[in-house]
Amino acid sequence: MSRTGMARVAGVVLAALCVTAGMAQNQPAAEEKRPRARDIGVAPGSLQPGMRNAITDVPGVRVGQVTLAEDQPDGTAIRTGVTAILPHSGNLFREKLAGAVHVFNAFGKLIGSTQVNELGQIETPIVLTNTLSVWDAAGGIAEWMLAQPGNEGVRSINPVVGETNDGYLNDIRGRHVKAEHVKRAIETATDGDVAEGSVGAGTGTVAFGWKGGIGTSSRLVPMKPQGFTVGVLVQSNFGGQLTIAGVPVWKSLQPPRERSATAERRNDADGSCMMVVATDAPLDARQLQRLAARAILGLARTGSTGSHGSGDFVIAFSVSNRYSSDPARFPPSAGIHLISGKVLEDDLSPLFQAAVEATEEAIYNSMLRATSVKGRDGNTAQAIPIEPLKALLSRRP
Amino acid sequence: MSRTGMARVAGVVLAALCVTAGMAQNQPAAEEKRPRARDIGVAPGSLQPGMRNAITDVPGVRVGQVTLAEDQPDGTAIRTGVTAILPHSGNLFREKLAGAVHVFNAFGKLIGSTQVNELGQIETPIVLTNTLSVWDAAGGIAEWMLAQPGNEGVRSINPVVGETNDGYLNDIRGRHVKAEHVKRAIETATDGDVAEGSVGAGTGTVAFGWKGGIGTSSRLVPMKPQGFTVGVLVQSNFGGQLTIAGVPVWKSLQPPRERSATAERRNDADGSCMMVVATDAPLDARQLQRLAARAILGLARTGSTGSHGSGDFVIAFSVSNRYSSDPARFPPSAGIHLISGKVLEDDLSPLFQAAVEATEEAIYNSMLRATSVKGRDGNTAQAIPIEPLKALLSRRP
Amino acid sequence: MSRTGMARVAGVVLAALCVTAGMAQNQPAAEEKRPRARDIGVAPGSLQPGMRNAITDVPGVRVGQVTLAEDQPDGTAIRTGVTAILPHSGNLFREKLAGAVHVFNAFGKLIGSTQVNELGQIETPIVLTNTLSVWDAAGGIAEWMLAQPGNEGVRSINPVVGETNDGYLNDIRGRHVKAEHVKRAIETATDGDVAEGSVGAGTGTVAFGWKGGIGTSSRLVPMKPQGFTVGVLVQSNFGGQLTIAGVPVWKSLQPPRERSATAERRNDADGSCMMVVATDAPLDARQLQRLAARAILGLARTGSTGSHGSGDFVIAFSVSNRYSSDPARFPPSAGIHLISGKVLEDDLSPLFQAAVEATEEAIYNSMLRATSVKGRDGNTAQAIPIEPLKALLSRRP
Amino acid sequence: MSRTGMARVAGVVLAALCVTAGMAQNQPAAEEKRPRARDIGVAPGSLQPGMRNAITDVPGVRVGQVTLAEDQPDGTAIRTGVTAILPHSGNLFREKLAGAVHVFNAFGKLIGSTQVNELGQIETPIVLTNTLSVWDAAGGIAEWMLAQPGNEGVRSINPVVGETNDGYLNDIRGRHVKAEHVKRAIETATDGDVAEGSVGAGTGTVAFGWKGGIGTSSRLVPMKPQGFTVGVLVQSNFGGQLTIAGVPVWKSLQPPRERSATAERRNDADGSCMMVVATDAPLDARQLQRLAARAILGLARTGSTGSHGSGDFVIAFSVSNRYSSDPARFPPSAGIHLISGKVLEDDLSPLFQAAVEATEEAIYNSMLRATSVKGRDGNTAQAIPIEPLKALLSRRP
Repeated sequence: MSRTGMARVAGVVLAALCVTAGMAQNQPAAEEKRPRARDIGVAPGSLQPGMRNAITDVPGVRVGQVTLAEDQPDGTAIRTGVTAILPHSGNLFREKLAGAVHVFNAFGKLIGSTQVNELGQIETPIVLTNTLSVWDAAGGIAEWMLAQPGNEGVRSINPVVGETNDGYLNDIRGRHVKAEHVKRAIETATDGDVAEGSVGAGTGTVAFGWKGGIGTSSRLVPMKPQGFTVGVLVQSNFGGQLTIAGVPVWKSLQPPRERSATAERRNDADGSCMMVVATDAPLDARQLQRLAARAILGLARTGSTGSHGSGDFVIAFSVSNRYSSDPARFPPSAGIHLISGKVLEDDLSPLFQAAVEATEEAIYNSMLRATSVKGRDGNTAQAIPIEPLKALLSRRP
Repeated sequence: MSRTGMARVAGVVLAALCVTAGMAQNQPAAEEKRPRARDIGVAPGSLQPGMRNAITDVPGVRVGQVTLAEDQPDGTAIRTGVTAILPHSGNLFREKLAGAVHVFNAFGKLIGSTQVNELGQIETPIVLTNTLSVWDAAGGIAEWMLAQPGNEGVRSINPVVGETNDGYLNDIRGRHVKAEHVKRAIETATDGDVAEGSVGAGTGTVAFGWKGGIGTSSRLVPMKPQGFTVGVLVQSNFGGQLTIAGVPVWKSLQPPRERSATAERRNDADGSCMMVVATDAPLDARQLQRLAARAILGLARTGSTGSHGSGDFVIAFSVSNRYSSDPARFPPSAGIHLISGKVLEDDLSPLFQAAVEATEEAIYNSMLRATSVKGRDGNTAQAIPIEPLKALLSRRP
Repeated sequence: MSRTGMARVAGVVLAALCVTAGMAQNQPAAEEKRPRARDIGVAPGSLQPGMRNAITDVPGVRVGQVTLAEDQPDGTAIRTGVTAILPHSGNLFREKLAGAVHVFNAFGKLIGSTQVNELGQIETPIVLTNTLSVWDAAGGIAEWMLAQPGNEGVRSINPVVGETNDGYLNDIRGRHVKAEHVKRAIETATDGDVAEGSVGAGTGTVAFGWKGGIGTSSRLVPMKPQGFTVGVLVQSNFGGQLTIAGVPVWKSLQPPRERSATAERRNDADGSCMMVVATDAPLDARQLQRLAARAILGLARTGSTGSHGSGDFVIAFSVSNRYSSDPARFPPSAGIHLISGKVLEDDLSPLFQAAVEATEEAIYNSMLRATSVKGRDGNTAQAIPIEPLKALLSRRP
Repeated sequence: MSRTGMARVAGVVLAALCVTAGMAQNQPAAEEKRPRARDIGVAPGSLQPGMRNAITDVPGVRVGQVTLAEDQPDGTAIRTGVTAILPHSGNLFREKLAGAVHVFNAFGKLIGSTQVNELGQIETPIVLTNTLSVWDAAGGIAEWMLAQPGNEGVRSINPVVGETNDGYLNDIRGRHVKAEHVKRAIETATDGDVAEGSVGAGTGTVAFGWKGGIGTSSRLVPMKPQGFTVGVLVQSNFGGQLTIAGVPVWKSLQPPRERSATAERRNDADGSCMMVVATDAPLDARQLQRLAARAILGLARTGSTGSHGSGDFVIAFSVSNRYSSDPARFPPSAGIHLISGKVLEDDLSPLFQAAVEATEEAIYNSMLRATSVKGRDGNTAQAIPIEPLKALLSRRP
């Protein structure tokens, strides 16, 4: 089946499954312009979002996505992809960033966390994809990094790859994500708006029985003498009792049940949520570990009960705390770090609050912006219907 | 000032600050019968609570509390206490239980977690008290344990003591909790209803700017071939944006502001939450660590943003997974453990959900049942007013 | 260059770089029969080794190795390989084992540790290879596992892959280890003697400036009512101050210095040590974590100072503590686990001692059995000369 | 029995059990001047020690000890004490230090580690004592800290207390260490030589069946542009197979066996080792965690097999990485930290080596300097005899 032919299958709208990041970002589906959370009055917490309300509000952060959506001759369906987050535009190996990975529920295949937590550094783009493609994705990052100018002598590299399991919609056993897709996601990354919903690593994910996907949000944190930004990007693929802005949506608005055996799995609480938290506050690795942990509080508010099968990880980094091996840029006399300031432990709380709020909102965005996807074996994940949801939310006090 | 004389001070109702656990449990304040969460229609999640909706629904678990409320001649005020949780009625050192401590934010003085997590065992009652009394409380546990019949040769013991900082209301620097109070709490523990609110270790705590305290709740988990119970007890003393059953209470119902310098601290998000999770599901220590982590999701739903200063810990144990050194009871041929079954990893999710739901409800109970307390230097924590809250909640969809 | 042609290059003996595990195990180099530690009187500790003094003394454990040694047309040299450890002969995904990964120094790319430690289970063969091939190796494991009978519906798998950096001798940037090599190592695994030295994942490694490689050892632990075995396999590629049986070898016997720029790296303390500990004692995951930590004590005795760059990990599993999803084999009424007994915490110390002793001896074996290897850019790692070493050791008191 | 009367009991020399730190440091036993490791030619590793070869070589670090040695009327014997390490001479709460606690085997009651590792800070003196006195010791630290000028408003404090179990010689159940002893140890701390052996917290400890105690050592680390010092202090109370400078002492020189029931325990491998690592290298908390882990490698070389019962912890801090709340000293414009430089991750290895070497030597010192002690119920721990040991060591190659 051609991509065009997929547009409407059994009443399911398949929107904008574009192969390149640029397309995904610039060409929303004509059929349906789905809202973000704030468009329907959902604005968690009390802090203000950044200009784009996206992880790209953190200076220098770029996102690139590759969406793989194809029906294969043998009847299997590819519904997966890659989402790459680039902390800065330079050579990440030569100029590493302070980073941390918080492990809430490690039933997942996340790659790279042990070294990140030992050394407190991230030295590659962060890539999200599907469970069975993490190794190929990590290999792709390594291949790309080894080929960068200045890395000719590099013999050790620590890719960071997160994943959720899109096997309900995607022919995950086919392991269709290849190094080339990872490299394309990295190379097409931009610092503009971030495509959300059924794109990139979110192409085939399911959240609370509805279509999940990629979502993002940010918060501005007023601090003295300068303010900071916290940005979050999520790949939602988990379950529980969907709650939006405190409203128990799960009680009245439920995804359609299916008859197939595998369909039952779709509605349960398993699956995972990958969260990436970026900030320009000059936190060190230990502080980033603390910041990362707070994303779990945002996750909780959307209704996750942390089911056994949900591998929930948070990857955090600071663009303002770097380690450079470039002596020209950082002569020994000038000190090695780029840190221009320090954040006292006592000043962390507003940053923590920002991470909670932005994570909650990013998850809502991932579902609201997602379009329905029909995948392998006829399995379908419906996008959560906007109008009934708005009606529910409108009755809030 | 006598206890009677404290009953009404500056318009603040000081209810039932009884010194013994029995009294606290049996004699609710005449002035005010404050509701539990379910009494006002707040019933988080979808699982049913146990008979008492308390940690004591887990077979064998007992709770004892000692409340210290006294105005001293020098004008300082004691508003603190002890809450003891006894996992079973036998000699806990001779018959240890599988246990785990989950550390979410370790800005706290919890004692005993490292050994619990290394050996996977809890071997004493669990005691909660105030921050600066943990060492005396631990010493009190040790003293009591060493004196138990059968422990004459014991030369190593690992008390578990959690705490929150009640220094806003309590003369915490006076370190008024002594070994005798701990021993009395242990010895008067019962398996009936648990006194909630401004009692025991919750006497002087503050949550979301309102009076916090001790709260408890439980959930029944239907599993095959038998069901299990998860019970939670909390000592609430934290902040954030109070949310009850999804309703952003913080937006419309706020605690009165005070003019004193220390009063400002009362309203911020610092403080801590101690959570104790008990179950009769035969989980091992690793599984209990996973279970404990889920309590954090319940905490998140009440509005915590995990502020820097909030030391949030979860202590979990299973009454069905024991280690005995009594050869008469456990002859070698019969195996050492009491485990009657196993819980497969795949079956953990309902237990996780139970921990989330019961923690959320226990926190609500801790605030709803709490009565206003006037403490040191005129500092006062008002109980959250029930009627305005009910009005707010009634407008939920 | 053919394998034959490699036999003597610039005076360096390249012994028996066989491509298949069977060959490697059965055909020691004709030129040189290098001794194991016990052959020269080095027998660390006080416990007795098993029959083979190898990890394969643990019932059911098998080892397969693939050695890649090839000089390429462009002048680069491949000196790397794969060592696979199979905990049992069945379907590892259907019948998982209790397992743990101990992280001493996480400057390394080990894959799979987070899930192993969360769930306490190992569900695939354990594979060792070089740093930049871990992702391809993990993909190879996944590919092999997904193809096993009974795994047709598997959509999640957690390969465990360890590594050390053989980039001094090997064209590591070429990432020459492919899925086919991993599969061959797995499929040719046997339970007999284990080839040691410059084979498999040890083909290109360097330890203390000398040629390192694969080494193994075991200990019998007399316990009541039955004895247990602890087996260790290491991939040595680290540095420090070489000490053998307490003798400071580093003071008098030093590897030849080279003039090349990269050669300097060979002599420093960086590099890593991967350790795999197997036992038939029915330990649970938490106990295996404790057991794994003890391997570090054995590592220390050989002279490691735990240098920054040395990623030292220990992977441990019990063949007697299994989780099966096969209802025919494990009917619900019979309980889920295969555990036939329990090891009390108090009985662990002899097992810990066994892990210390076997790790120390395995490291000696890895170096003693290693043959000199000349690799990329003329870089050479000499095997430690036996006669001078024996002379040194003979002077021990 | 008077202290004088204790001097010779049943042939056991009880040397210099002085009650005050000053006395202990200045008045070595007249009967016997036992050597330090270097005095008998034992100098682990290759780095040079500092001037005193003690933890007090790290600028500003002071040590105070109180020894409790008394025979009580009821026949029980007190053989215990307190060793306090003060990282700097100022108000530690107002000017905290970067710190970390490494947990190797958490079968121990160490207090304070969770907060230290969360916040990366140490804010009190570090105190070592016996297992059942940790709570009273921590309370004593708190009491002392709360009373310091400038701490009038402090309502939260995190004492760090380590311990080993001296119950073989000491009436440990009597819990004889009180707050006053802790305060005296703190207040008498000096930066000179450190008394070793059977003093302070080492008064009643046993190592490898011989008398253990307090030991210390240091290393100078040449780095550019300036050198750093690493100092270690240990409380040795563990077992295994005593190895000194690589010589398997355990094979030929064994402590005398006793007939009493409790005596058997003395010879086993249980017990613990507390290690404190100080440095003036400006490491952050994460780096200190890495540094602390290396002390375990030094422990291993002395013959520890990490027995189940040995609670082995390492507490590390940097005197050059401080957090001050004194706005006069650290005006906001000047930045908050005292850090004068940074240590790159790549430069850590020599510091790691220093920690390994100094820990090994500190343990030897703790045993060599220890004098025999006869304790409760006639239990005796002999000091390792020097002459036979020297004879053994002299035969090293």
